[in-house]
Amino acid sequence: MNNRHILLMDGPDHKGLIYHVTRVLFEHNLNIIRNDEYVSPSGYFFMRTEFEGEADPDQLLVVLQNELPQVINLRVNPKKKKDVVLMVTKEHHCLGELLIRYAFDELDANIQAVISNYNVLQPFVSKFGIPFHYISHEHKTRQEHEEAILRTLDIYQPEYVVLAKYMRVLTSDFVKHYSSRIVNIHHSFLPAFVGANPYRQAYERGVKIIGATAHFVNDDLDEGPIIAQDVKEVDHRQTATDMATLGRDTEKLVLSKALKLVFNDRVFIHNNRTIIL
Amino acid sequence: MNNRHILLMDGPDHKGLIYHVTRVLFEHNLNIIRNDEYVSPSGYFFMRTEFEGEADPDQLLVVLQNELPQVINLRVNPKKKKDVVLMVTKEHHCLGELLIRYAFDELDANIQAVISNYNVLQPFVSKFGIPFHYISHEHKTRQEHEEAILRTLDIYQPEYVVLAKYMRVLTSDFVKHYSSRIVNIHHSFLPAFVGANPYRQAYERGVKIIGATAHFVNDDLDEGPIIAQDVKEVDHRQTATDMATLGRDTEKLVLSKALKLVFNDRVFIHNNRTIIL
Amino acid sequence: MNNRHILLMDGPDHKGLIYHVTRVLFEHNLNIIRNDEYVSPSGYFFMRTEFEGEADPDQLLVVLQNELPQVINLRVNPKKKKDVVLMVTKEHHCLGELLIRYAFDELDANIQAVISNYNVLQPFVSKFGIPFHYISHEHKTRQEHEEAILRTLDIYQPEYVVLAKYMRVLTSDFVKHYSSRIVNIHHSFLPAFVGANPYRQAYERGVKIIGATAHFVNDDLDEGPIIAQDVKEVDHRQTATDMATLGRDTEKLVLSKALKLVFNDRVFIHNNRTIIL
Amino acid sequence: MNNRHILLMDGPDHKGLIYHVTRVLFEHNLNIIRNDEYVSPSGYFFMRTEFEGEADPDQLLVVLQNELPQVINLRVNPKKKKDVVLMVTKEHHCLGELLIRYAFDELDANIQAVISNYNVLQPFVSKFGIPFHYISHEHKTRQEHEEAILRTLDIYQPEYVVLAKYMRVLTSDFVKHYSSRIVNIHHSFLPAFVGANPYRQAYERGVKIIGATAHFVNDDLDEGPIIAQDVKEVDHRQTATDMATLGRDTEKLVLSKALKLVFNDRVFIHNNRTIIL
Repeated sequence: MNNRHILLMDGPDHKGLIYHVTRVLFEHNLNIIRNDEYVSPSGYFFMRTEFEGEADPDQLLVVLQNELPQVINLRVNPKKKKDVVLMVTKEHHCLGELLIRYAFDELDANIQAVISNYNVLQPFVSKFGIPFHYISHEHKTRQEHEEAILRTLDIYQPEYVVLAKYMRVLTSDFVKHYSSRIVNIHHSFLPAFVGANPYRQAYERGVKIIGATAHFVNDDLDEGPIIAQDVKEVDHRQTATDMATLGRDTEKLVLSKALKLVFNDRVFIHNNRTIIL
Repeated sequence: MNNRHILLMDGPDHKGLIYHVTRVLFEHNLNIIRNDEYVSPSGYFFMRTEFEGEADPDQLLVVLQNELPQVINLRVNPKKKKDVVLMVTKEHHCLGELLIRYAFDELDANIQAVISNYNVLQPFVSKFGIPFHYISHEHKTRQEHEEAILRTLDIYQPEYVVLAKYMRVLTSDFVKHYSSRIVNIHHSFLPAFVGANPYRQAYERGVKIIGATAHFVNDDLDEGPIIAQDVKEVDHRQTATDMATLGRDTEKLVLSKALKLVFNDRVFIHNNRTIIL
Repeated sequence: MNNRHILLMDGPDHKGLIYHVTRVLFEHNLNIIRNDEYVSPSGYFFMRTEFEGEADPDQLLVVLQNELPQVINLRVNPKKKKDVVLMVTKEHHCLGELLIRYAFDELDANIQAVISNYNVLQPFVSKFGIPFHYISHEHKTRQEHEEAILRTLDIYQPEYVVLAKYMRVLTSDFVKHYSSRIVNIHHSFLPAFVGANPYRQAYERGVKIIGATAHFVNDDLDEGPIIAQDVKEVDHRQTATDMATLGRDTEKLVLSKALKLVFNDRVFIHNNRTIIL
Repeated sequence: MNNRHILLMDGPDHKGLIYHVTRVLFEHNLNIIRNDEYVSPSGYFFMRTEFEGEADPDQLLVVLQNELPQVINLRVNPKKKKDVVLMVTKEHHCLGELLIRYAFDELDANIQAVISNYNVLQPFVSKFGIPFHYISHEHKTRQEHEEAILRTLDIYQPEYVVLAKYMRVLTSDFVKHYSSRIVNIHHSFLPAFVGANPYRQAYERGVKIIGATAHFVNDDLDEGPIIAQDVKEVDHRQTATDMATLGRDTEKLVLSKALKLVFNDRVFIHNNRTIIL
C-alpha cells in the first residue's frame, strides 16, 4: 500500500467542497478508495479521502489550497504506521493487549518504548524486546518528573503518546507538548464516575452497567474528546473488585479500538468532540 | 398458579438460614420451584423462594418467625398481578409500550388508571379503556397539585406508582406516601447526566454511548436505587434530537424490564442499591 | 423538507463518479446535505446523496445519465413517506410497535391497511382507524388465497409490503409482484435456525444468545438479503417459551430499525446482500 | 481460600434436596458462601454450593450419600486451580490472551504445556517459560498423530485440554480420553456457520452480526454443549478478512469467559446443554 494516501480536510461548509477535491484527484489520475464526509448541524465540514496512485503530497496540497477557501484545513499524508510511546504504571492488561497486537503486527503502529513510574512491568516488557524506561516519581517534584519524561520522549519523537493505565495526572504544561496527540484510557464510563476509584463508586451507586472511555487528553484530565466507549453488564453479585476485574477487558478493547481509529487518521477533533470518519 | 407463593427474606446473615427455611417448607409438604439467595460482602443475607402447594401464608409466617432470628424480615405473598397507576406528561413511548403489554396480558400488573398533568395523551389512553385523570399543575401550588394527585391515587390504592415519563419533580412529602413503591424511568445513563436535557448534555460531551435508567424514587429524585439500565451506541452524526429519539426505545424497554422484576417480587432494596434475585 | 431529494446510484466503479455527480449538483445550485458511498471489494460502486434545493428530478436524471457510464443505475426521488401495507397473522408485538410509531408520526411511512389470515387482531387495529382485511386461508388453495391478497393489495398499490409476523410461506409467484419490496421479520438469528419453531431449536441446542433478522423476501423465504439483526443473551433458565417471549422485543425493534432504513432509501441490494448507506 | 470447598450435585428432582444438603452442612458447622440451584422443566435438579470451614470431603460425601437418593450425583472438591494443557495451530490471539492472564495469575488454572502441530508459536510461548511441544501432523496418519499427542498429554495428566484455535478435527477415539474435559473455541456463532471458513460464509450471506462460541467437544466436533457465546456487529464495509480480524477479539474473550466458568466448577452438562450456576 505504498502509494496509498489520506487527505484530511475540515472547515466551515461551502457549496462544492466535495466537487473541487474530487475534481483535483480526478485530474491527477488518482483513484478514490474510500471517501467519508460529515457536515455538523452548525455547518462545519469534515472529509477523509483515501486514495491511490502516484502522488506528490506537497504538490497536491498546493493545488488544493488554490482551489479551496482559505479557512479550510488540509493535510495529505501517506498511509503508514505511527510511531508511539506507551506510558504505564503497574497494571498490565492494556499494555499486554497492545504488546501482543504489536508483536504480531496488528497495531498499525510502531511501539518505540515504554515509560513507567514503576519498574514492575519491566520484565514483562523485556519479553517483547522493547526499551523500558523506569522514571520514578519518588523524590522528585511533579515538574522534575514530567521533565524527565519529556526528555525521554524527545529521544523518540513519537507521533502519539498512549497512556495505557498511567495513573498519574499530567499537568497542562506536559500536555501542551503533545497537544491532541495523547490518548488515555479511563476506567469509567465517562462522565459517570470522574475521579479516583470509579469501580467503588459504581458499586456503591448500584449501577447495572460499567464502562470504559478512551479519549484525548487536554488540560482537564478526564474531559478531553471521547474517541471510543464500551460497557459491560454487572449485577449486585459483583463487588467493586469484581467490577474492576471485569472492567479491564472493556478497557483494553476500548483502548485498542480507539487507537486503531487514531492510527488510521480517522479521528477529527472539533469543539471537544470527535468526528470519526 | 393459584397455589404459587413467594417468600422474601432479608437480614444479617446467620448460619443455617437456608436450612431452617427449607426444613419448614419440607415439613409443610411445600415444593420449592425456585430458590435464589445472596449474601453481601458486608454479611447481609437475601433470599427469594418460590414455592407451590397448599399454604396459609399467615400461619407459615408465624412458624418461620419462631425458627429464625428476630432481625430477619420475612414476607410470604401469593404470586399475583400487582395493581398500578401510571403517571405521564406528554410523551407516549413508555406509556404505549406498557398499554400494549397490558392489552395483551403480558405486564404482570393491572393498570388501574393513568394520571397526567396534560391532556394530550387522553385520546390514546381512551383507546385502551383505562380511566385517564387530567390533573393540570397550572394555577396550583406544587403542594395543591400533589394533593390533588394523592386524592386520585387514594381512590385506587395502587401497590405501585409508575412514572412513565412524568416530567415534574415530586416532593419528599409525596414520595413518603409510596415509599419504595414509585418506579421512574430516567432519560439518562445515570449517574452520567443528571438533570434537564440529558441528550443535549450527551451530544455536547460527544459521548459514544447513551442510556436509560429505571430506578425507585426517593427524596433525591435521580438518586434512588437503580433497578435496570441499558445503553445504545451513538456517533457524531446523531444530533441531540436524534439521540432523544434513539433513547426512547431504550427507555421503554428498560422500564418494561424493571417493572417485570418489581412486579414479580424479585427486587430487594438495601443501602440504596437493589439486589435482584 | 419539501425540497429535499435523494439520489441513488450503483454500478461498476469508474474513476470520477463522485466528481461528475457533485459537479452536476454544484452547477444546478443544489446543496449536498449528506453523501455516502461505498465500493465493494469486487469493484461495484454505491452512492446515496441527500441534497436540497429547487430541482426537477426528471431533468436532473437526464443530465446525469449523459455524464455517467451507461451501466450506472440512477434514481432521484423526492424525500417522502412511503405507502405500506402490513400483513400479520395472530401475534401483536410487531404490529403494536408499528401502529404506535405510526399513530405518533414516527414511522416515515403511511400505513394504508393491515391484511391478516385471522381476525384476532381486528379489534386492536380498529383502535387506530386503519382498514383491516381479514382474508382467511381456510377452504382456499394457496393460489386462491394469495390471489385474494393480491387483489386487496392492488387497491392500495403500496410501495412496500411488511410481513409483521405473517406466518405463512409466500410463493414465488406472489413474491414476484413485489420484488425487493417485501420486508419480513424472522424469529431467529439467521442463518442459525431456519424453519419452524426456532426458539425450541435454540433451547434444545442450549445457545446462550438468541436473535432476530429483518430481511427482504425472495423466492427462498428465509434467504433474502438481510437488512438488520440483533440479539439478546439467554441462559439455561429460559425455556423455549421464555425465549420466544424475550425474542419478541428483539423482533419488534429489529423490524422497526430495518424499516427506518428502507423507508429512508438507505438500502441497496446487491448479490443477495444489502449495502446500507 | 484453602478451606473453601465446592459441592456439585445433580439428578432427578426430589422434595427436600436443598433441605438435606443444607442440614448436613449446618450440622458439620460449615458455612455456605454461595448456593445456586436450578430445576429443569423436565424435573432435573442441579445445585452448586460453595462453603467454608474444616471439612473432610470424602467423609462429607459419605454422609450426604446416605441422606440423599441413590440417583443423585455428588462431588465435593476443594476450591483450587485446574491443571490444563493448551493445543494450538498457528493463530496467536487466544493463546496470547490466556498466557497473559496466566502470567499475571488471573486464569484460575495452571498451564502445564502448549502442544501444537506447527512450530510458529514456539518463540512466543517460550517468552512465558511454558513447555512447548511441536507435534507435526506431517508424514503421520491421523491415528499416529493423535497417539503422539496423547502420549504427551499423559506426561501432564491435565484436568482440562483447551483447544485455543487448534485447527484439526479430533477423532472420537481421542475425545473419549478427555470426555467432557476438552473445551474448544469455534470461530462462528454456532449453529450458524458450521465448517470451514465461517467468516467467508458470513460475508457472503451478508450478516450484520458475527460471533464466537466456546463449547465442550464431543464426537461431533461442532455440536458439543455450548458454554459461552458473544457477538459483534458488522456491516457491508467489512470484508471476510476484516470479519475474521474482528472475530478474533470476540473469540479470545468468549474462550476466557468460558474457561473461567469451567475452572470454577460452575458448569454442568445435561442432554448436550450446559447449566451454569
